[in-house]
Amino acid sequence: MPFRKPALEGFAPYVPGFQPPDAEGWVKLNTNESPFPPSPAVLRAIAAEAGYLNLYPDPEQKAFRAAAAQAFDLGADEVVAGNGGDELLGMAVRAFVPAGSRVAVLGPTYTLMPALARIAEVEVEAHSWPASFDGVPDSFTRSDAPLKYICNPNSPTGTFIALEQVAALCAASPGVVLLDEAYVDFAPDSGLSILGGCPNLLLVRTMSKAYSLAGLRLGFAIANTDLMADLWSVKESYNVGRLPLAAAVAALMDVEYHDGCVGQIRANRARLATELRARGWEVLEPAGNFIWGYPDGRRDAGNMDVYDALFERKVLVRRFDIGEPGGWGYRVTIGTWDQCQALLDALDAIKAGGNRS
Amino acid sequence: MPFRKPALEGFAPYVPGFQPPDAEGWVKLNTNESPFPPSPAVLRAIAAEAGYLNLYPDPEQKAFRAAAAQAFDLGADEVVAGNGGDELLGMAVRAFVPAGSRVAVLGPTYTLMPALARIAEVEVEAHSWPASFDGVPDSFTRSDAPLKYICNPNSPTGTFIALEQVAALCAASPGVVLLDEAYVDFAPDSGLSILGGCPNLLLVRTMSKAYSLAGLRLGFAIANTDLMADLWSVKESYNVGRLPLAAAVAALMDVEYHDGCVGQIRANRARLATELRARGWEVLEPAGNFIWGYPDGRRDAGNMDVYDALFERKVLVRRFDIGEPGGWGYRVTIGTWDQCQALLDALDAIKAGGNRS
Repeated sequence: MPFRKPALEGFAPYVPGFQPPDAEGWVKLNTNESPFPPSPAVLRAIAAEAGYLNLYPDPEQKAFRAAAAQAFDLGADEVVAGNGGDELLGMAVRAFVPAGSRVAVLGPTYTLMPALARIAEVEVEAHSWPASFDGVPDSFTRSDAPLKYICNPNSPTGTFIALEQVAALCAASPGVVLLDEAYVDFAPDSGLSILGGCPNLLLVRTMSKAYSLAGLRLGFAIANTDLMADLWSVKESYNVGRLPLAAAVAALMDVEYHDGCVGQIRANRARLATELRARGWEVLEPAGNFIWGYPDGRRDAGNMDVYDALFERKVLVRRFDIGEPGGWGYRVTIGTWDQCQALLDALDAIKAGGNRS
Repeated sequence: MPFRKPALEGFAPYVPGFQPPDAEGWVKLNTNESPFPPSPAVLRAIAAEAGYLNLYPDPEQKAFRAAAAQAFDLGADEVVAGNGGDELLGMAVRAFVPAGSRVAVLGPTYTLMPALARIAEVEVEAHSWPASFDGVPDSFTRSDAPLKYICNPNSPTGTFIALEQVAALCAASPGVVLLDEAYVDFAPDSGLSILGGCPNLLLVRTMSKAYSLAGLRLGFAIANTDLMADLWSVKESYNVGRLPLAAAVAALMDVEYHDGCVGQIRANRARLATELRARGWEVLEPAGNFIWGYPDGRRDAGNMDVYDALFERKVLVRRFDIGEPGGWGYRVTIGTWDQCQALLDALDAIKAGGNRS
């Protein structure tokens, strides 16, 4: 007989993307990582900090919060670091949603929130994006759930909505609006532009993508002081270690490196979208470090064999059935141009009926 | 109006030990850290891993679990790594205790569990150690709580009970028994010796103390396969980063370094206990990397001024009022002998009425 609580019966947790056993041989475009190494300043900061690992990290994260405050023009009491953005999503559920209550989710989107809700014995109130993915539906705006989850740019669709719409959502919401901005570095605008007028807006960001630090596990949340204090009350004292804190400070300070990586990803994204469309793919307008598209414009299971043909050629992408709206599609992380070209070459070879060389 | 859920009204989270702003000048014996740096093999592993930080860590923690399985003679499916032992305590509450139910705590002990319970909307069923801290009280054994928390060696008392008593507790308990073994490396025995016969026993350990890695944040849990699977179902995919996983593998492999550090701490502990007793302290028999004692044998608030006098001399220890049994006392982390001698010198100077030099 299992010991886990009844609420978890039959529970299947979030399944992360496939990790190839021998990463070297693969063109890995499946988990939205950066194709670039971290900034050299990050590596130096890690080396300098490692000798102090016998001592606990700063539970108040003072150096990190000062760096983030400077980078984003915030007060230091408007930010907190977490063990990846994922921990901050869990903290938000634990801080704001009573057991037995609801979290409203605008989907299809990142699928972690339903798992977190299940663990917290909280219901998921599911709302659907419009088929165009360009606005917030009335039902979501009108919901009185104590926490609403919206991802912008959204995953896996890569679509982006104007921040005015998020501000209107906040104004109409009695609870907290969690805006997951994991991919915002690659987008035209961010929630920072509306933060001042939205006391119930909680931004969650990450160093994983634009700072090339997915393996580090450091996300951060931004909100006005009162809301941040509420979130802080459920923070574990030592939730972020010395190495991530020191590395994140260095990464935030190296603006030039960050901007250079983001610029290359944006350029490759535009070029790859053009090339895929030229090959018959339907591609939604991308705002993250990935593309969401449909080979031959097909949104059904019939397009799924492309995955296997790419896998055979050691090109890893991710396929999802995201339900309605959206259907069956592909999420392709933007890599270096060489990686993008390898994907295109593989697609061309598949189309030509060629076998793996 | 706060946004946090009603269950958190008036909630005060766990308060970690004081972190001096200028650590260099202090004799820091207040947070049970190791006075030794991490193994050189750990520093090499971190440097080697840092270049891969743009990629997510292994969500299955295969290399770490293989190393832990080898180190402790386990199956790889009997262990999981967490973001410090603290995360594993939280995971246990989330996996095993339904909202509205109870976690039984044998106290005075580490005070994180009541905070975690409050966040999970779970009641704390408080049980008291006997005044001798040498056994499990009947009330705790008989409890039918779905999760019981017991710390061995206990903190802050440093006391240790024989594992036969824990085995009897497990046999009588319908739910999970979480044995917090944060300090077990310094003790005469461990829960591994009874694991085979206890399907409901969950051991939680840490690299923070005996492996000199408090700043890294890596704890691990050990249990039989079925119980481990239950715990695993609430694990975040990427809950431990690349650097802690790689560092922990190196630390587990460097048995000689670990054993050397532990040996020195044990020797210093015995010597410091003798010296403190010679100065009139009552000292409980210590089994962790710290000593719990009472200046002049006084267990009341009257002994509390020693803290301030030590603080003035930049010697940091920790004082607690742990309630009954135990009262007011001091927890002194075992440092290098130079640090221990500095504490003794400061105590002698205070006794002599000397001022800070």
